[in-house]
Amino acid sequence: MKIALDALGGDYGVKPNILGAIKATKDFGCEVILVGDEAKIQEELKQHKYNPAKITVVHAPDMIDMEASPAMEYRRKKNASIVVCARLVKEGNADVMISAGNSGATMVAALFGLGRIQGVSRPAIASPMPTQTGFALIVDAGANADCNAVNLLQFGVLGSVYYKHIYGKPNATVGLLSIGEEEGKGNLLIKETTKYIRNLGLNYYGNIEGRDIHSGMIDIVVCDGFVGNIVLKTSEGLAKSLFKMIKSNLKGKPLAMLGMLLAKPALMKVKEVTDPDTFGGAPLLGVNGNVIISHGKSNEKAIYCAIKAGIKTVESKALKAMEEAIAAHKAVFDEAEGK
Amino acid sequence: MKIALDALGGDYGVKPNILGAIKATKDFGCEVILVGDEAKIQEELKQHKYNPAKITVVHAPDMIDMEASPAMEYRRKKNASIVVCARLVKEGNADVMISAGNSGATMVAALFGLGRIQGVSRPAIASPMPTQTGFALIVDAGANADCNAVNLLQFGVLGSVYYKHIYGKPNATVGLLSIGEEEGKGNLLIKETTKYIRNLGLNYYGNIEGRDIHSGMIDIVVCDGFVGNIVLKTSEGLAKSLFKMIKSNLKGKPLAMLGMLLAKPALMKVKEVTDPDTFGGAPLLGVNGNVIISHGKSNEKAIYCAIKAGIKTVESKALKAMEEAIAAHKAVFDEAEGK
Repeated sequence: MKIALDALGGDYGVKPNILGAIKATKDFGCEVILVGDEAKIQEELKQHKYNPAKITVVHAPDMIDMEASPAMEYRRKKNASIVVCARLVKEGNADVMISAGNSGATMVAALFGLGRIQGVSRPAIASPMPTQTGFALIVDAGANADCNAVNLLQFGVLGSVYYKHIYGKPNATVGLLSIGEEEGKGNLLIKETTKYIRNLGLNYYGNIEGRDIHSGMIDIVVCDGFVGNIVLKTSEGLAKSLFKMIKSNLKGKPLAMLGMLLAKPALMKVKEVTDPDTFGGAPLLGVNGNVIISHGKSNEKAIYCAIKAGIKTVESKALKAMEEAIAAHKAVFDEAEGK
Repeated sequence: MKIALDALGGDYGVKPNILGAIKATKDFGCEVILVGDEAKIQEELKQHKYNPAKITVVHAPDMIDMEASPAMEYRRKKNASIVVCARLVKEGNADVMISAGNSGATMVAALFGLGRIQGVSRPAIASPMPTQTGFALIVDAGANADCNAVNLLQFGVLGSVYYKHIYGKPNATVGLLSIGEEEGKGNLLIKETTKYIRNLGLNYYGNIEGRDIHSGMIDIVVCDGFVGNIVLKTSEGLAKSLFKMIKSNLKGKPLAMLGMLLAKPALMKVKEVTDPDTFGGAPLLGVNGNVIISHGKSNEKAIYCAIKAGIKTVESKALKAMEEAIAAHKAVFDEAEGK
């Protein structure tokens, strides 16, 4: 098992990438290819103990400029770390690519470097979101700001197959995120999607509302990337704000402060299960290769968990199953597209 | 000051409406017209002490069928409580209408009964959402599932003027809810809206992301009603789920339970400031009259607070100011519409 890791990705430089990689090679027996500026990587590497048979370095010093045209940047920056990661996967020299760098750049590199699964119109980010009972996958969590019905239908299929393979739940429930629970309620996109979604053989629940996401009643929440990203960020922001509000209301109340101290283990448990780091990044579904996007603020633990998720993704053979599922429902997608 | 209250509105029948109304007449000196099935209202009324000079009843026994065509229902059900409420305002017999009933029915009754402010293309629900520092108004919170740029521009103007008049903050900040903070990032609707929004003379902050809503940095969050409603419901659901998760993690941990008991006053304070009941409902902005929509689960306190918000809305003369602001920016709206 070979992992191509964008060693420059993320807000904290090479260190968390390298620490996460070293720990992963020890625990999982995988090989990690650290892709990026070799001097910087070696500088950090020599400060740690690691197995050189399991950790290799590929020099890739360029950086993608997110302000420039993505397609142009992809062609020009052949030695950007994220582009090299995609090439390693494409050429069979790595099984999965992982990056905590700019998710837009990762998507561009993956899309151009690996191509799409045959029949997929747009890849989607499947982001795990903590719920009362575990987590739900939000598909799409931000890859596509504007979507059509075919996109949403495919997100449902991709998410459902991925969930089955990774989490061993064969009948994962799929909900269409909307306003109003009644069939067909929502915006034009939801109404159009509703016409076809029952033909996909999913364990389709129907429309769900925002309040249902965190209750844990649905495994896969299908929405366009604009809505999905806003839901994700709103949830992160609200959780943070609530904890801050509780903290600031404790001020000047010694008894309440003592109480909070005693309750801390229980609170930490909630914080732990809702910690995005433990989910190990979000797969990019629909590209022709295994790709895990980790968030920009990834620490050692987040990178370690992302590698774990990457290994699981490869071993589950979800990619092949997604290919087959997309091919199997071609007629539905064609109909929705008016072909 | 006369309030037309849909006495049948809400999930709990006439009781919370009547109790909230009685308390409001005592505290605010307003008159409340209870609109609905007279027998039911009188039956409840006679169980309470109230000032008959301040509380009157208008018989309106019909119910709007939400499954039928709204326009047709409006014409056919001239004696539906919500239709009568709108007529009372239209004919100058009430200053504001308030309902905890189906918000779709309230919108239909208000739109057909009162008409729109001259130049407004679509009315919007402005829903207050608790933040770390107070609250933000979400405009639109669910009236319009599909919007164009003109709608969003007008939501910004209506929300901004309303906020200024009701909360006395002349330079309330307006943010466009999107994915990515950079100017012009987002979906096609946001990109189109961004072209014109700086011409409206608002205290425009720029794009905001989901995580910024609850931090309190923005007063008015502009978005389409599909996104706004999902954000609102997601936040409500997450807050509930977090408190439930904390509770279930306390089980079997006596020390932590004791701690939570001690910390309870601080937690209750947070619960109180984030309680939707205290906000007293959401105004429907853009119709030619004062309308407050209260949520379906309104209890006595929620109705009381909705009446308080209604009185404040009337006294602030926000309606007239919104009329003027919409007229003043006609050129911008025309340009955005391609006129």
